[in-house]
Amino acid sequence: MKMPKNNHAIGLFDSGVGGLTVLKEVIRALPKENIVYFADTARIPYGEKSRETIIRFSIENTIFLLEQNIKMLVVPCNTATAHAIDKLHQIFNIPIIGVVEPGAKKAVSVTKNGRIAVLGTRGTIKSGIYQREIKKRLPEAEVIAISCPLFVPLVEERMLSHPVTKLVIQEYLTPLKKASVDTLLLGCTHYPLLRKAIQEFMGEDVTIVDSASTCAEEVLLTLSHEKLHCDGQNDPKHHYYVSDDPQKFQQLGSEFLESPLTSVSLKVD
Amino acid sequence: MKMPKNNHAIGLFDSGVGGLTVLKEVIRALPKENIVYFADTARIPYGEKSRETIIRFSIENTIFLLEQNIKMLVVPCNTATAHAIDKLHQIFNIPIIGVVEPGAKKAVSVTKNGRIAVLGTRGTIKSGIYQREIKKRLPEAEVIAISCPLFVPLVEERMLSHPVTKLVIQEYLTPLKKASVDTLLLGCTHYPLLRKAIQEFMGEDVTIVDSASTCAEEVLLTLSHEKLHCDGQNDPKHHYYVSDDPQKFQQLGSEFLESPLTSVSLKVD
Repeated sequence: MKMPKNNHAIGLFDSGVGGLTVLKEVIRALPKENIVYFADTARIPYGEKSRETIIRFSIENTIFLLEQNIKMLVVPCNTATAHAIDKLHQIFNIPIIGVVEPGAKKAVSVTKNGRIAVLGTRGTIKSGIYQREIKKRLPEAEVIAISCPLFVPLVEERMLSHPVTKLVIQEYLTPLKKASVDTLLLGCTHYPLLRKAIQEFMGEDVTIVDSASTCAEEVLLTLSHEKLHCDGQNDPKHHYYVSDDPQKFQQLGSEFLESPLTSVSLKVD
Repeated sequence: MKMPKNNHAIGLFDSGVGGLTVLKEVIRALPKENIVYFADTARIPYGEKSRETIIRFSIENTIFLLEQNIKMLVVPCNTATAHAIDKLHQIFNIPIIGVVEPGAKKAVSVTKNGRIAVLGTRGTIKSGIYQREIKKRLPEAEVIAISCPLFVPLVEERMLSHPVTKLVIQEYLTPLKKASVDTLLLGCTHYPLLRKAIQEFMGEDVTIVDSASTCAEEVLLTLSHEKLHCDGQNDPKHHYYVSDDPQKFQQLGSEFLESPLTSVSLKVD
């Protein structure tokens, strides 16, 4: 018997564990859905690589997830969303949700003085997608976008409140203090793990937002709109694939998801 | 007319620009040889990835270089040498030279008190290959091996003498000062760019060595032994392939090679 499409999984891909901060919110909003998450750990990181390469990776990852029978794609990776979401929409005939639009929406809803900072990888910032998505919703906004290429390695090394990290934060974010931003958008799914250290540096008057919860709301809305909710008769299955080192992903991933990852397999080419 | 084998190129692969520090010495020692260098920039970095994945990448890269008609393979990447050199020797029937043996040889020839530090990526250090290769030559040596995962991103960001880099060096290398090492081996081809900052921290009494020049001598010896020198009748050709972003490689690579890179192509899968 063919499984009804509604009970197919929601698929997500990221270069690594970062997207799990988004998945956590998706699971919270949709606890009954089946999930397939692919982490492209053999080719991590994506942030500093070229647009063409990220598009190729994103297409390959989506095809792999479609082979696992997904009913919907979420791209909880800012770099992949920035470079490839339009191409994925063109090619694939399933609902696709990225993290940039939800993040921009949230930042615009939160700011009072219209001065919004965006932090991201070099790829995300260079693409200009956040700047465009914010201006589309709030044309008078002043957006200050800063690429923070060392944040990902620091998070991967778990140096979340280390003096080195504090110094790097100071180096990257000093211009933001001078610009009196009132809202700071974390445009990379690794960065929420640095939220505390960033907040300390920026002070309590700055509101830090990320796209995780808004993205999950978007997923919920889309499932309702497309009538794609699963029937909830069985326990939800959450399965994780990686292209390198399942054990490392399982360990680090559990911290990002704040819940143990039980079923992790190596994707074999 | 088939090109005589002696005029085939020497092939090298690395995850990125790091191996160019070795290539520079190879070119200095063998200015008439043709060169093909492949930088796997789409999958950079290698240092923190698993043994199995690095073996797979190394085999794929070698096959690509063989398709470009190489007569000899040099692996100027410590992580790839550490994990994959034995496998490459098993599979491929051409002379193959890694960077670990030359580096170990040099460290042993330089030390006076037998206390040798090795710095490398997590993959290289975990493999234990430097520790074994040094002990093989100097059984009474005391080897202190330290993985320095943030060095590569710091070099890629060109933060060569930045306060952040100094703090990271202090963090990683303080145990070495206490251990009174007299020789420090840079077991990653990115690290020579941090030589000055490392020397400053360790003090002038510590001799810093890398494998580049010794590796080039090894290449020279092997070519002589195998009677594989090119005839030198034509100008040597140096060609570079990358799996991502030729322009970025060209810019950063010229700094590593200390000479402009003119011919860089994208390898298409």
